[in-house]
Amino acid sequence: MAENRDEITEFFKNLQDNISNGIAQLDGKAVFEEDIWERKDGGGGRTRIIQNGDAFEKGGVNFSAVHGALPAVIKNALKVNGDEFYATGVSIVIHPNNPFVPIIHMNVRYFEIEKETYWFGGGIDLTPHYIIEKDAQFFHDSLKKACDKNDVAYYPEFKKWADDYFFIKHRNETRGIGGIFFDRLNTKDGFTKSQRFKFVKDVGNSFLPIYTELVNRNRATPFNDNNKEWQFVRRGRYVEFNLVYDKGTKFGLDTNGRIESILMSLPKTAQWHYNYQVNEGSEEEFTLENLKKGKAW
Amino acid sequence: MAENRDEITEFFKNLQDNISNGIAQLDGKAVFEEDIWERKDGGGGRTRIIQNGDAFEKGGVNFSAVHGALPAVIKNALKVNGDEFYATGVSIVIHPNNPFVPIIHMNVRYFEIEKETYWFGGGIDLTPHYIIEKDAQFFHDSLKKACDKNDVAYYPEFKKWADDYFFIKHRNETRGIGGIFFDRLNTKDGFTKSQRFKFVKDVGNSFLPIYTELVNRNRATPFNDNNKEWQFVRRGRYVEFNLVYDKGTKFGLDTNGRIESILMSLPKTAQWHYNYQVNEGSEEEFTLENLKKGKAW
Repeated sequence: MAENRDEITEFFKNLQDNISNGIAQLDGKAVFEEDIWERKDGGGGRTRIIQNGDAFEKGGVNFSAVHGALPAVIKNALKVNGDEFYATGVSIVIHPNNPFVPIIHMNVRYFEIEKETYWFGGGIDLTPHYIIEKDAQFFHDSLKKACDKNDVAYYPEFKKWADDYFFIKHRNETRGIGGIFFDRLNTKDGFTKSQRFKFVKDVGNSFLPIYTELVNRNRATPFNDNNKEWQFVRRGRYVEFNLVYDKGTKFGLDTNGRIESILMSLPKTAQWHYNYQVNEGSEEEFTLENLKKGKAW
Repeated sequence: MAENRDEITEFFKNLQDNISNGIAQLDGKAVFEEDIWERKDGGGGRTRIIQNGDAFEKGGVNFSAVHGALPAVIKNALKVNGDEFYATGVSIVIHPNNPFVPIIHMNVRYFEIEKETYWFGGGIDLTPHYIIEKDAQFFHDSLKKACDKNDVAYYPEFKKWADDYFFIKHRNETRGIGGIFFDRLNTKDGFTKSQRFKFVKDVGNSFLPIYTELVNRNRATPFNDNNKEWQFVRRGRYVEFNLVYDKGTKFGLDTNGRIESILMSLPKTAQWHYNYQVNEGSEEEFTLENLKKGKAW
């Protein structure tokens, strides 16, 4: 294979460095703490957490590269053959202080079994506490550009995938405004491994400029106690999605992953009010009404 | 059958009235709001919520009685035959303001299929933010008494069941100090339906005196910001249990139950700090060390 696992792993490591440096600079106050961890059965990771910053209340920019015998539970879940696996990737969730700055999530990953089967997966999605239309457009336009450079079929397919995946079924609402989500990208449909890897690199490299712009647009927006309460309620929904539906979280809990790295995605503070209602004509109502699948931003 | 569903349903309705009246009196400031709801496919319930009280920040004392065609997903999960079901019960979760007052949960329920198969289930368990030994002993002694009046084999069996059930596997800690948990109690092992029903009544009726005592012992205990932060962290674990493991919650989400009634169990405010550590020799450490299965209180 043209791109071997070492080259891909190296890219993800550097991506973690670039993004964590960029996020720390953007924050200007807090720095990342790093925890290096090892996996008993092979490999390990670098968990980097920023907390109580100027722009960011809590965020993680994590790298891992793990390998070993493929656990039976994963073998069944993935419906794959083979006994040895290698998985590496970068996983990010950032919870900002200001309710007008959105929560962002990115995951880019590479998975290999027996050095023969491989695929790339990942995506970026945005969870605004308040949907701001021009920001939503900027976000989706940026992702579309990163996709289109590689294949014009990517964005529509991966945008739909994100809408379907980041969906809180029991609330009948999307987690946020979606983004792109993809999985099992390998050598098929006429793509080479180099082309798939280039796409994943483009996605990974789009993260910092996109989020920097969204943070700078909104980090100084004034907010009141009601805005903050709404942020806590939306974060509650984020917790619901991650603990009830998110496959990465479930996978981590089922396979005895490092619990603090898995649950770093949860916000510092979240709230649940009984039967929370939004006011007619409010910004909160506008947001709720737009947390729907299939919206063209 | 000696006790028909109407008599059992009536008992649960009255139990809800007694407990919600008692809790409101105990609080002395907040009152319960009631939402009457109907289930599209048969039956309904009375959700009663108390919020922002003197002793209680958020709590629900709920009654429901639902019936209809047994959904396939439940049929499979319960491994039962029959097409018509009837289910009624009372479900309670109370989150107090003061971190030294414990969270309490009770569920008592009756399930019937085709008027031939039936069983009772339920339990009471306690989740102290701070474990206070004499309170834990009082709690378990009270439950043991309610059990022993009916059968001396109940408490040891149901105490172990609670330890095993209220366990947060990914944290390797119990949700709280357990209590009792039981299910599928019917006419077998020499018990009559009347005897099973009497036991469930004794459990239900033990709730108010037990919690009143625990609230009164601790509601005026002074607390500081650290105690409050620890309460938020422990509530985060409560959220993790309920969204990841709790069968009642899962059942409700899977069967499109009334979402606000199902998730009333979640606290108003919860927190997740990255890699939260307790200080050596602290009350928090004492609590953590005692969140273990199999402890004889």
